[in-house]
Amino acid sequence: MQTFKLIVEYDGTDFNGWQIQKTGRTIQGQIEKALFTMTRQPVRVTGSGRTDAGVHALGQSAHFRCQTRLTPDAFFSGLNSLLPEDIVIRSCTRESETFHARYDVRQKTYRYYILNRPLAPAIGRQYAWHIAKPIDIKAMVQAARHVKGTHDFGAFENTGSPRSHSIRTISTARFLTDAKDPQIIFEITANGFLRYMVRNILGTLVETGLGRMTPEEMPAILDSKDRSHAGATAPAHGLFLVDVEY
Amino acid sequence: MQTFKLIVEYDGTDFNGWQIQKTGRTIQGQIEKALFTMTRQPVRVTGSGRTDAGVHALGQSAHFRCQTRLTPDAFFSGLNSLLPEDIVIRSCTRESETFHARYDVRQKTYRYYILNRPLAPAIGRQYAWHIAKPIDIKAMVQAARHVKGTHDFGAFENTGSPRSHSIRTISTARFLTDAKDPQIIFEITANGFLRYMVRNILGTLVETGLGRMTPEEMPAILDSKDRSHAGATAPAHGLFLVDVEY
Repeated sequence: MQTFKLIVEYDGTDFNGWQIQKTGRTIQGQIEKALFTMTRQPVRVTGSGRTDAGVHALGQSAHFRCQTRLTPDAFFSGLNSLLPEDIVIRSCTRESETFHARYDVRQKTYRYYILNRPLAPAIGRQYAWHIAKPIDIKAMVQAARHVKGTHDFGAFENTGSPRSHSIRTISTARFLTDAKDPQIIFEITANGFLRYMVRNILGTLVETGLGRMTPEEMPAILDSKDRSHAGATAPAHGLFLVDVEY
Repeated sequence: MQTFKLIVEYDGTDFNGWQIQKTGRTIQGQIEKALFTMTRQPVRVTGSGRTDAGVHALGQSAHFRCQTRLTPDAFFSGLNSLLPEDIVIRSCTRESETFHARYDVRQKTYRYYILNRPLAPAIGRQYAWHIAKPIDIKAMVQAARHVKGTHDFGAFENTGSPRSHSIRTISTARFLTDAKDPQIIFEITANGFLRYMVRNILGTLVETGLGRMTPEEMPAILDSKDRSHAGATAPAHGLFLVDVEY
């Protein structure tokens, strides 16, 4: 058996998420189909985690194991010629037989894109959450400081995710753009994320940016561990999984 | 009768071009449908020119005339709420009754986006021409200098466009990006463009960038007025109409 690691870029617009479902087009499903074409074996692809329907990736990671004479380069080229154009394999490398794309994750980084201006965009509308009302980015920066560090993120978790506990460590939670730039980029790095955690945190930060709550309310929301205390889930199409570290 | 001017942004991906056709979804068709809903009159929309299937616009211009009590603001809001999300009205203003979106054009500016790197993109693939082989941007810059000024652009014109002659004046033809940046942006401004002219010029510049011809061959291609001497037509999806001046 040999183990291969993939780094995958995809446009989540036309996918029902990463993970194979009974119905709907999925990234995992498309890659497994292409691997079957190449190897004539059923090959299971394990991602670093699932991304939800509509979420994009610039650097999702995954592994698969199979008995093959094919080289990583052959998989790289073969998969890219077989896959639809909304999935691109950025790299394929051989890994030790114990490598596991989910269990071995050290940190993951997501970016969330907001376009904050009165006018909706036609170009690029599938890659950013358009918010027409003016956002106070300073309030969002202040609120974001409170989520850094090790906390129980139960208040920012949607149900339905298998996990032993909801404590995670966020090492980075910052905005990459200046005030007055209509494009707002939020970057968050943690050792793991709960279901909808980025979208729930971002949705709550936006509430502070819109003046519906204050940044100082963030610690109480965290302490409550109650999902109903946090803001609404931000839409999927602004979210990008950009990097997975091992 | 009142005359209104629209500035329109659209994602050309899912359109059969600007102009109403017997079949297929068009930008003009969608706007006229929305205007009929608002005014209960058949209203003809005249663009600054047609854009071909797949071409995008950040600043297409158009006018329409009708008898109405609706204000420009009412059209702006009403159209944006009625139109599909791949068309956005950026502004609606009242103009003098003689204003004509096509006849009164002084200059138009297009941008063409190329992504020059080995790996195809999944994100944003609908907004740039991906060229995997390395391009010599210096050669393209040199070649572009030759198209500036007033010339007969017959060599860069596809047949089927109604026009009295093929002489046009290009005031700007430049690259906005540095060498080594994988994103190459070409900007071109002229007092008018023939059918496929930008895509044919850009396609020819790319031939020089790939070393298939030299920049010094450009004047002879222009002089030939023969379409078969120029390079292949660049794909539609890298092209954006960015501004129309009156």
